[in-house]
This record gives sequence, structure tokens and C-alpha cells, in this order.
Amino acid sequence: MKFVKGNAMVGQSGGPTSAINATLAGVYKAARDSEYIETMYGMVNGIEGLLNGNIVDMGINIKTDADIDLLAATPSAYLGSCRYKLPKEKDDAAAFEAAYKKIFEIFAQYNIKYFFYIGGNDSMDTAYKVSQYAEKIGYEINVMGVPKTIDNDLAVTDHTPGFGSAAKYIATATREVSRDASVYPAKCVTIMEIMGRNAGWLTAATALARGENCDAPDLIYVPELMFDVDKFLADVKAISEKKDCVIVAVSEGAKINKDTYVCEALSSGETDAFGHKHLSGTARVLADIVGDKLGLKTRQIEFGLLQRCAAHSASGTDIAESRQIGAAAVEKAVNGTTGEMVYYKRESNKPYKMTIGSIDIGQTANVERVIPREWINAEGNNVTQEAIDYMLPLIQGEAPIFMENGLPKHITLK
Amino acid sequence: MKFVKGNAMVGQSGGPTSAINATLAGVYKAARDSEYIETMYGMVNGIEGLLNGNIVDMGINIKTDADIDLLAATPSAYLGSCRYKLPKEKDDAAAFEAAYKKIFEIFAQYNIKYFFYIGGNDSMDTAYKVSQYAEKIGYEINVMGVPKTIDNDLAVTDHTPGFGSAAKYIATATREVSRDASVYPAKCVTIMEIMGRNAGWLTAATALARGENCDAPDLIYVPELMFDVDKFLADVKAISEKKDCVIVAVSEGAKINKDTYVCEALSSGETDAFGHKHLSGTARVLADIVGDKLGLKTRQIEFGLLQRCAAHSASGTDIAESRQIGAAAVEKAVNGTTGEMVYYKRESNKPYKMTIGSIDIGQTANVERVIPREWINAEGNNVTQEAIDYMLPLIQGEAPIFMENGLPKHITLK
Repeated sequence: MKFVKGNAMVGQSGGPTSAINATLAGVYKAARDSEYIETMYGMVNGIEGLLNGNIVDMGINIKTDADIDLLAATPSAYLGSCRYKLPKEKDDAAAFEAAYKKIFEIFAQYNIKYFFYIGGNDSMDTAYKVSQYAEKIGYEINVMGVPKTIDNDLAVTDHTPGFGSAAKYIATATREVSRDASVYPAKCVTIMEIMGRNAGWLTAATALARGENCDAPDLIYVPELMFDVDKFLADVKAISEKKDCVIVAVSEGAKINKDTYVCEALSSGETDAFGHKHLSGTARVLADIVGDKLGLKTRQIEFGLLQRCAAHSASGTDIAESRQIGAAAVEKAVNGTTGEMVYYKRESNKPYKMTIGSIDIGQTANVERVIPREWINAEGNNVTQEAIDYMLPLIQGEAPIFMENGLPKHITLK
Repeated sequence: MKFVKGNAMVGQSGGPTSAINATLAGVYKAARDSEYIETMYGMVNGIEGLLNGNIVDMGINIKTDADIDLLAATPSAYLGSCRYKLPKEKDDAAAFEAAYKKIFEIFAQYNIKYFFYIGGNDSMDTAYKVSQYAEKIGYEINVMGVPKTIDNDLAVTDHTPGFGSAAKYIATATREVSRDASVYPAKCVTIMEIMGRNAGWLTAATALARGENCDAPDLIYVPELMFDVDKFLADVKAISEKKDCVIVAVSEGAKINKDTYVCEALSSGETDAFGHKHLSGTARVLADIVGDKLGLKTRQIEFGLLQRCAAHSASGTDIAESRQIGAAAVEKAVNGTTGEMVYYKRESNKPYKMTIGSIDIGQTANVERVIPREWINAEGNNVTQEAIDYMLPLIQGEAPIFMENGLPKHITLK
């Protein structure tokens, strides 16, 4: 299928990032400027919204190039996201058939010839199934998946849209926390907890903070390796004998064995006044054990939600690339590509040069990419220069921010 | 005393802020350019470092105007801080005498004729005592206190250096969290915990996030009023009946009565695997009770340390004023003022115009300033437009940042 005129549908899914709207901006601008796409519709709250008929004409709210730029500077998902999972054919063939039948009825009703889905592994799986079903029923539509996730854990692509901005915020915060931690003339261990359940890319990004005036973090623990509490204590002890201010980065996903998170292993799972059982965070239980076993003063910090929505500190490279990959998905679709996911290919590192390719979505779905063992040092408490060299280009440059009354301005659907 | 030539000593104390180094930059630049000040020394780790002879020539590391600008962009305290409290005369007259005698021996040794101390209430008290002791022993020295604190809780001054930057970060983060919280089509209550034990200025600053595309936070609870758990639940219930995404800002210092923090009242004080008794945070216990009593999904976020060290998001107004107030302290000192604290005086709000005055430190020390009752709404769950109008000028503009390899660059002593 090639050079078909018609309308397009776009949606966002999965957890928010600082760059997923930049990708939407890239998709929308390319669609608006394409002679093959007449109207671009947005599914509000992803595939769940589509099934409920919650559909908007993207052009009603996003009118000008300035609006598109503002969209690219707005964190989280402009069109909303969903947690809804489509029925699987192997689990319930009738429900599967009903859901996809409904999707294609709506596509027909809106004359949808192009479908773009921006999201993580689950969303790529959905896009794949939509393209398969279209082929089965003979509905002419070009389907493209566009990756996103702060976790950088998708296969095929060199890195994911959204990772660079999260990494830049984390590295900036690490450097600032390191300044804050070094003011008092006393020994202190600061433990920073970073997002990432299975892949340690964001925790590794703390290493980018190092520079002429910053030697933090001293120790980095990623979830790719099992966490050894005794080795950790020995590491902290060794560093604290050399310097007052010890900074440790640890992934929320650190585990002592494949079934047990550090926070589960070291937390008593206390019950609060309302009978809720709580697990303390990884940083808190590690701070406690350092205090207990080494007698050192500790502080603990969870970087929290801002890791995925701190658009005020977004990477210029990430936001620009996220727009490009969105635009590339549209260009490929109007040139006849379908059932593929766009991805980044690093052509060279110094100077950094990136191109965009596309690949059969069926080959990408549900494959997780973690930090290669050789990018973690032998001792398992740091990342190598290769890891740093890989990440460094992704946090370069500042993304445009539009200020209003002293604060970054956003654009919202309603 | 007027137009005395000699050396100067400067120190920083109290908790770090994003602006305390901007004040140091202002003090240092004015001193360097003054014909009355020959060498400016820095006390490393405040008065504790001074007593230990830990003194540096400021000019050795800070050589150029560019270095001064970089200092102003570096968070935390360049010279370090201390938790050491000087002996009080009423508690131990001999220890008091010994400490001040030593301080003045060091002053004499370094030919110190000017003394500048940048800090909060305790530091102003120290500066006051230094000036009193100088008078007692007839040592010619001009002593100036320069205020700082993110908490904005010092008397006399219209606002404190450091508050504007913390407020800007908090308001920015509130807006970003509000975007993040609104992606799913489901009811959810997000509770944000903000620094401030007794004064609610930083919690009130979340109100600055409101704008054309942001209605968060829906509810604001400051520690100036006692926290009523039932009223809070009724407030949340009422908002959640009108909209899906409820955002609440609460001070870490919220109390149910004058002796009991909310987190103490609602937390069971669980004991962990190592026998440590923990209090859950205010946001967490409130999230739990909302889930328990109202059956709503909740999230909780502690803004944490970044509130005081996120220089990457500093207020241009705050950083510029912090430099000005440091310079003003030097100008006043070389013109013969001693025993005074410089402060901000707001001449007008629209347009915003600020001047710098000075006042006898004895009149300022240890007086805390909280939000006036009339700037909190009658229901006690929001701040008024007057509070917003007061804070808004303080977060305007972006402070210069010097980027290095994708991250803000800092300058450090060693």
C-alpha cells in the first residue's frame, strides 16, 4: 500500500515521560504537513479511549507551530494513557475478536488509513496485533509503532526517547545532592534511590554527574547484578575511610536473589495504624543497615516521580530526537511501511550521529534490554567508561522551555 | 569607625540553599573591588572552622569575574557549614569567654577589620555576639549579618535569600507532578510533602503552579494552622467528587496539636529489622488514610532535598537579589555600619521593586515569621491571592547556569 489518502489516528500509552509529547509533536507536525493525511485524530487514554469512542481532532487544540513546540515542551502524555490491556487471542478468542472488530469499525467510521502508537513494549505489541488483524481482514492501513520509556530497556533501538531527559535530570540532581551532602565537616553516607526495576540505565546515569568539581557517586548498584549486602557494607566502609562524604546510587530494583528485592529482604514489612503493610524503600533500608553495622551517619533520598516528568530539565538531544522519530514514523507510513517500529541507530559516537531505521514490530515486542555485563565494573559497584561514553551524548543540550510567570508553560487537552 | 583599611572574613552557616553562594559571590566581589578591604578570607565550615584555624584566602580559588558568576550558580555552601553552637555566656561564662577570646586572637592575627556571616537565626545571633564582644574589648571591626534560608521564616526582611529559588523549584515540580498525575482515566489523590517545620511558605509556594493549564494543587495545608484529619478527609472527598485528579500539598510540619505531628499521630512507629523505630512521612500517612477511609487510589511524593539545592531551577530574581544583598553588606560595612543585618524591603509589588536596608541584629535574632492568618483561606485548606501576589515576583526570571557536558557546572573549594 502506498500513497493512500485518508485520516490518521495517534495514541500514547504506558508511563509518562518528559519526551512522549515531543514524539507526539513530531508525529502531528509531519502528519499535518503531509499531503496524504487529511485529519489527524488522537485517541484519548490510548486504546481504551479508542474503544470508548474518546477521540479528538488534534488540530482543534494544537493550531500553530508555536502550539506544537509547546506540546514538545510539556511532560507526561497530552492524550493521556491507559492501563487497559486488550484481550489476548490465546486467552479469549471471542473477546479478542470483539475488541479488534470494534477497533476496525471505528477506523472505518473515521476513515483511518494511518495508525501511530507511541509507547513501550505493551504498546508495540498492540500496534503489532492491529497490523496483523488489518492484514487478516484486508483493511488498508499503515501501522507504525514509536518507542518511548525512561527506562531505556527496549530492544533494537540504540536508546529510547525519554531516557536522555530522565538521565539528565538524575545526573543534575546527583551533582546537586553531592554539593548539598558535602557542607558539614563530618562523615556521612548519602544513599540515592533511582527508578528502574530490571534495567539499571537510570541508576547508571548518576555516573554522568562526575566531572572536574564532582566525584559523586562513589558507588553504583544496578539491578543487573545480584546485590550482596556484605559486599555493599565493605564497599561503603572502604570509601568512608578515605573521605567524609560518601554518595551511593542504588536502583529501586536491586535484589538479593532473583525473587527478593533488597527492600523486602531488609525491611520488616511493618504494619501501620490502619493495618497497611509497608515495605520501606531500598535507600531507607540500606541507610539503616549502614548506620547499624558501620555506625555512620546516613541520609537517604528517593528521586521519585520527577525522574519521569521533570521537563524543565529535559535533554535538548532527547527532545529533538523524539520529535524526529515521530516525524520519521509518519514519513515511513505515508511511503507504505506498515507493521514496523521506528528506532534509533547510532552511526558514530564521536561525533555523535544518529539515524532512524524501522523494523518489523514482531521482532521487537517484549524483549527487554539491560546493561551489558562488560559495562559494569568487575566488582559490581560502578559502571565503566564505555557506559558513560554511551550515555553522555544523550543528555547534551537544553530543550526549549516556554516560561509563563516564572514557570514552564504546558499545553493540555482540556 | 569608618574607612578603615584591613582584611575581611566571611563565613556561611545553617542549611544549604541554592542562593547562599550567590550572596557569598556578592560579598566577595564587593570586597575585592573595595579600596578598604585588602584580602578577604573565608572560614571553612563557619565559626567551627574559624576556631580550628581552617581559613582560606578567597582569591586563591575565585580568580575572575567568571569564577564569581560560577560561584553564584553553585548550590549549597561553598565554604561549608557547621552545626557547632558557640557557648552561651549564661550557660558557661568561662567557655564563652574562651571561645570569643580565641575568635578575636585569630581576627588580630589576620588583621580582620570586617566580618560577614551569612546564615539563619543562629548565625545572626553569632554575628550579634561577635559585634558585642568587639565593643566590650575595644577591637575595631565592622560586623554584618546577611540572612539566608529557604524557609522564608526570618523576621524583618520582606523575604529571605534562597526562598525564591526553592519556591520556583517547588512550583515547577508541582506543575510537572500535576501533568504526570492526570494521564490515567481514573480517580487518584496525589499528596505532595513539602519542607517547612513551622512556617508554611514553601508549601504555600505550590499555589504558584496554578495557571491557564494547571489547577493544582487543589488543597494546601500549612503548619500555621492545626491539621484536622476529619476536615482533610471531607475536603479530599468533596474535590474527588468533582474531578478525577486531586492534588494536595501538605507541609512536613503539619500538626494535629501543638505537640504532635500528623506523621506521629497517624503512624504506628513501626520497628524495622534492625530495631529502628521509624515514623512514616506526613504524605505517606495521609495517603494511607485517604485510601482507607475514602477508598481512593493514592500516590505520595516527598519533594526532598532538591528543594534546597536545585540550582538548575533557581529564580533569576532570587540569585540577583542574593548577590545584591551580599554586596550591600560590604558597602554598609566599609561605610562604618556594624552590628547590623541587611534585609530586603519591598517598595512596591506591581511593578516589583525591592531595596536593601539594615537593622540592629539584636532586634532580629531568633524571631520567626510565619504566614499571616489572613493569607490562609477561612477553611484553612488554601492560601489567598494576597499570598500568591506576595510570592510571585520572587520566582521570576531564570538564573544564569553554566553548562559543562550537558550538566550545570559548579565551583568547589578543593
